[in-house]
Amino acid sequence: MDEINGKIFVVGTGPGSVEHITPAARKAIEQAQVIVGYGTYLDLIKELLAGKEVVSTGMTQEVDRCRKADELAHQGKSVAMICGGDPGVYAMAGLVYEIVRSSKSLVTVQVIPGISALNAAASRLGAPLMHDFACISLSDRLTPWDVIEKRLNAAAAADFVIVLYNPRSKGRADHINKARDIILKHRTRSTVVGIVTGAMREHEKIIVTDLEHMRDSDIDMQTTVVIGNSNTFRWNDLMITPRGYEKKFKI
Amino acid sequence: MDEINGKIFVVGTGPGSVEHITPAARKAIEQAQVIVGYGTYLDLIKELLAGKEVVSTGMTQEVDRCRKADELAHQGKSVAMICGGDPGVYAMAGLVYEIVRSSKSLVTVQVIPGISALNAAASRLGAPLMHDFACISLSDRLTPWDVIEKRLNAAAAADFVIVLYNPRSKGRADHINKARDIILKHRTRSTVVGIVTGAMREHEKIIVTDLEHMRDSDIDMQTTVVIGNSNTFRWNDLMITPRGYEKKFKI
Repeated sequence: MDEINGKIFVVGTGPGSVEHITPAARKAIEQAQVIVGYGTYLDLIKELLAGKEVVSTGMTQEVDRCRKADELAHQGKSVAMICGGDPGVYAMAGLVYEIVRSSKSLVTVQVIPGISALNAAASRLGAPLMHDFACISLSDRLTPWDVIEKRLNAAAAADFVIVLYNPRSKGRADHINKARDIILKHRTRSTVVGIVTGAMREHEKIIVTDLEHMRDSDIDMQTTVVIGNSNTFRWNDLMITPRGYEKKFKI
Repeated sequence: MDEINGKIFVVGTGPGSVEHITPAARKAIEQAQVIVGYGTYLDLIKELLAGKEVVSTGMTQEVDRCRKADELAHQGKSVAMICGGDPGVYAMAGLVYEIVRSSKSLVTVQVIPGISALNAAASRLGAPLMHDFACISLSDRLTPWDVIEKRLNAAAAADFVIVLYNPRSKGRADHINKARDIILKHRTRSTVVGIVTGAMREHEKIIVTDLEHMRDSDIDMQTTVVIGNSNTFRWNDLMITPRGYEKKFKI
């Protein structure tokens, strides 16, 4: 991280509290001349932004945000593009590369990973991701719904733990119920479900329920939903997917 | 994190360099009276362990390690169980809960997430995880091989990006080639493949290749293999899975 001019750091700030930002991410933010990001994520780390040039854009303006970062870096500035969670998981890393590739600006890009929503949610639910899992976004903004359905069917049939990103928003209120119905074609109604909203933020809400009852729960844009596999069990309001030790070691 | 007696913190220390350990993880290590872990992971963070009681066990002694942590916490001690990566992804979080549940020790457990191998590998490869992905471990130590094959087939057929954990060890040198052959039933030979060994450690090695040529690459226990989906492309030795913006916004 010596040469920082003409460079975009795509920085993951984790679930939202400063205690989950890595030193590498913090250093990139501190050294950058310009901070680019979406308002909500910037608010969560505002103590790190004092005295910086900050370019804040709206939530759906990802393309503008990346173009701006590319433009500033092309002028020789060091830019930190802030992403909640991990920029490498369904987030800004790819778009930054695509914009830089397309503009031919020759700007250098470095991705600094953060604690992503799947890691944060799993840690609050117990241990749901001890075995093979599939992550599926329910947003059909950029993906046809039939592709999403195909992946839900495949993951449910092969008994993956399933992590659902973007389970619900105003424009797609019913996607989560459609996903549940698809998964129910392959799994029992008592399959354990974990629902984490605002992980590690002030308003954090954690629910452990099952496929039968999950429709009663509040789910919004900030929610990550984890559907257990056929061995996942509940214990003390937690959700645990056994790795297989219990058979071998008679725990 | 106020009450730390009689508690096990299951702490993720990330890919291996101190600059990727979150402040929350560092604090738990600093406050714990006893540190329990596997030798290699303890070595990576030895600067944090000065003056601590340290219980180090071998790699395959996970059950003993968790029993020891449970026993020490049951005596009223605060214990930090150290895990490389994220304890919540194919790691110790589940086994700790299972041991505590079985011993009825009433010890409290708290999982502190870390940067997992999938996040670290993705950040070094470019942006492979911009779309739906499935994580599959190729270790048949605790999982029957036919379950692993079923999941490889399902993930490949539904065009998930595929992240392979435990791709090769002494006892299973050929699993990675078997996995490749299964994936090739559903994908073209030019499908992009990223191979990351020792991410963010001194000996880090990154290869971007394709399904046809991947067999020529060094792959070992410390390697994470990422198989792209049908849209993943190579650019400047990187691996990028487009999210779909390019169609909508004409990048």
